[in-house]
Amino acid sequence: MMPFLTEKFGNPSSIYSYGRESRLAIENARKTVAKILHAHPAEIFFTSGGTESSNTAITAAVHDLGCRHIISSPLEHHATLHTVEYLNQKGEAALSYVKSGTNGHVDLEDLERILGESGEKCLVTLMHANNEIGNLLDIHAVGEICKKYNAIFHSDTVQTVGHYPFDLRNTPVHFITGAGHKFHGPKGVGILYINENVQIKPMIHGGSQERNMRAGTENLYGIVGFAKALELATERYTEDSMYIGGLKRYMADQLKENIKGVYFNGDTFGESLYTVLNVSFPKTEKSEMILFNLDIKGICASGGSACTSGVDQGSHVIRAINNNPNQVAVRFSFSRHNTREEVDFVVSTLRGLI
Amino acid sequence: MMPFLTEKFGNPSSIYSYGRESRLAIENARKTVAKILHAHPAEIFFTSGGTESSNTAITAAVHDLGCRHIISSPLEHHATLHTVEYLNQKGEAALSYVKSGTNGHVDLEDLERILGESGEKCLVTLMHANNEIGNLLDIHAVGEICKKYNAIFHSDTVQTVGHYPFDLRNTPVHFITGAGHKFHGPKGVGILYINENVQIKPMIHGGSQERNMRAGTENLYGIVGFAKALELATERYTEDSMYIGGLKRYMADQLKENIKGVYFNGDTFGESLYTVLNVSFPKTEKSEMILFNLDIKGICASGGSACTSGVDQGSHVIRAINNNPNQVAVRFSFSRHNTREEVDFVVSTLRGLI
Ligand SMILES: Cc1ncc(COP(=O)(O)O)c(C=O)c1O
Ligand SMILES: Cc1ncc(COP(=O)(O)O)c(C=O)c1O
Repeated sequence: MMPFLTEKFGNPSSIYSYGRESRLAIENARKTVAKILHAHPAEIFFTSGGTESSNTAITAAVHDLGCRHIISSPLEHHATLHTVEYLNQKGEAALSYVKSGTNGHVDLEDLERILGESGEKCLVTLMHANNEIGNLLDIHAVGEICKKYNAIFHSDTVQTVGHYPFDLRNTPVHFITGAGHKFHGPKGVGILYINENVQIKPMIHGGSQERNMRAGTENLYGIVGFAKALELATERYTEDSMYIGGLKRYMADQLKENIKGVYFNGDTFGESLYTVLNVSFPKTEKSEMILFNLDIKGICASGGSACTSGVDQGSHVIRAINNNPNQVAVRFSFSRHNTREEVDFVVSTLRGLI
Repeated sequence: MMPFLTEKFGNPSSIYSYGRESRLAIENARKTVAKILHAHPAEIFFTSGGTESSNTAITAAVHDLGCRHIISSPLEHHATLHTVEYLNQKGEAALSYVKSGTNGHVDLEDLERILGESGEKCLVTLMHANNEIGNLLDIHAVGEICKKYNAIFHSDTVQTVGHYPFDLRNTPVHFITGAGHKFHGPKGVGILYINENVQIKPMIHGGSQERNMRAGTENLYGIVGFAKALELATERYTEDSMYIGGLKRYMADQLKENIKGVYFNGDTFGESLYTVLNVSFPKTEKSEMILFNLDIKGICASGGSACTSGVDQGSHVIRAINNNPNQVAVRFSFSRHNTREEVDFVVSTLRGLI
């Protein structure tokens, strides 16, 4: 990113050489991303992040693709939930939520039932991996169901782009999203994949950037950084995912061994992100202040999603799948920078706190 | 920006210490910006750029503030024009354009006439300075007219924030916008000022960032860079504006002396940006390729706005005020990094090209 922060500051839309140099960097970034996701470069659009990408896809499905019925899940990220609620409240689309089990998996039979009973063109928006409990969705299975009912399928893949291989040419999905900061890339930049078979209008109007799909001077260094970070994450995938998955299992084992009454939220040891471990502890006077006390010890863990953790409402996801008033849920996330020694320290600290 | 790209990568919405450090940086940036613009920190919202800011303000005026009639000008930036056209085409608001003279100034009597004749609540969206011809609008005068007719007033101030002093506490405007890259700051970050007396809903839905007004993980280093760049620009304002204005006048004088038939678009020597000089040259076989040839000599100049210069349609602004088929318009922009020697080189190059 550094050259584009220090020397190469041409506006990518300017036709002179400084501009063309910047434009080239963006188009190379697009090619890199497309190649990694097995998509066509013309299907990749850069945005300001995962939230904007999901907002664009969902809004466009309703405004431009004729979807009058949105099917989603209460376990989605707020970027999806608040968008579908907004469209529903404005009367632009009906809204149904698919059931999910206590293990946090979306009930695909219920999805099919809703699709079958709907008299409208549907948008199905279901996330690939849940950012709080880690549950992975079978997007191929959901995509096939959507095909059967001629529904548009958007999947919030913010937790999986950069963490799992994608083969979009062979994945029945219309829109997916990504955010740079989820895989050690920059904040404030994301992608929206729009399958070449769907034609939508932009959400942000103005100049002709991103082939008229997303107006505004491009976040040049962000885009360059996004592609580079994705490239690095992809190169390291096999090694990193094994290592990180090992840390997650190690921590779960240590917790079970050392702390009475721990409970794991979601399908922790099944179809689940290798990066996330969501644990419920018995509620005690001490455990209510658990995040606060972990922080004092230099341990970074979260309650709800980061986006709402300022607000002390707890997690809408945990409430939806395991509303046990006698438990306190804490989400631990792992990266390649974490170590077993850190896990040991966290577990022994937790032992003291419970 | 560097610490936030290398060491301080906490998510500003996370409650642990790394997150709080990032949050603090954002709130300090907000205070810096608010102080410089003489606004309240609660009136400043960070966005992905000028385009998103204008889209948000204009859309909210229609959706949340009851404006059913938009009054704008054909000389606006596409970020405004394409947004108002979109809302108009969707049937959400009527649309009128204020007349302007051949000098490029908006006709305030015509504005008042349209406001007086409108039976609806109006949104007036008129830019503070035109990015192509440099014309400055008297936003105080327009704001007073809007007050009289109880209209909402949005001004695209992307060309003036960082280049002129602002005193928003004493400026009758509801929304203004800014973009970092216009004053040597980062790309992909901007601000929207929302006067504390208006309450709108977000355009991008999701997490509770920016006090529920703009969802999505914040472009942390962009925000920090925006505030720093604005601070530097403000410190240097007196000195830089005199110096840059001197370059503009010098170039105009040299052009008049050296090239026959030059014509200046806009109110070049009156109410005009000190940073922009828009010149029309007589159309000849050579001058049609003028941008191309300037580029070869290492001179960066533009036809239309950067956002559309990929598309070879010429400039909608020049077409609106001076549709002379025998002239070719070129926009030169100046910064504190330019010199008189560069101006001399450009003028002698142009002499050879015409
Ligand atoms: C007057 C004006 N308004 C809006 C914009 C759009 O800002 P951005 O490209 O940062 O979205 C620009 C420049 O790009 C501009 O010059
Ligand atoms: C699953 C999921 N979707 C969407 C987002 C929003 O992405 P961003 O904050 O980059 O807008 C996030 C995280 O922030 C996420 O975890």
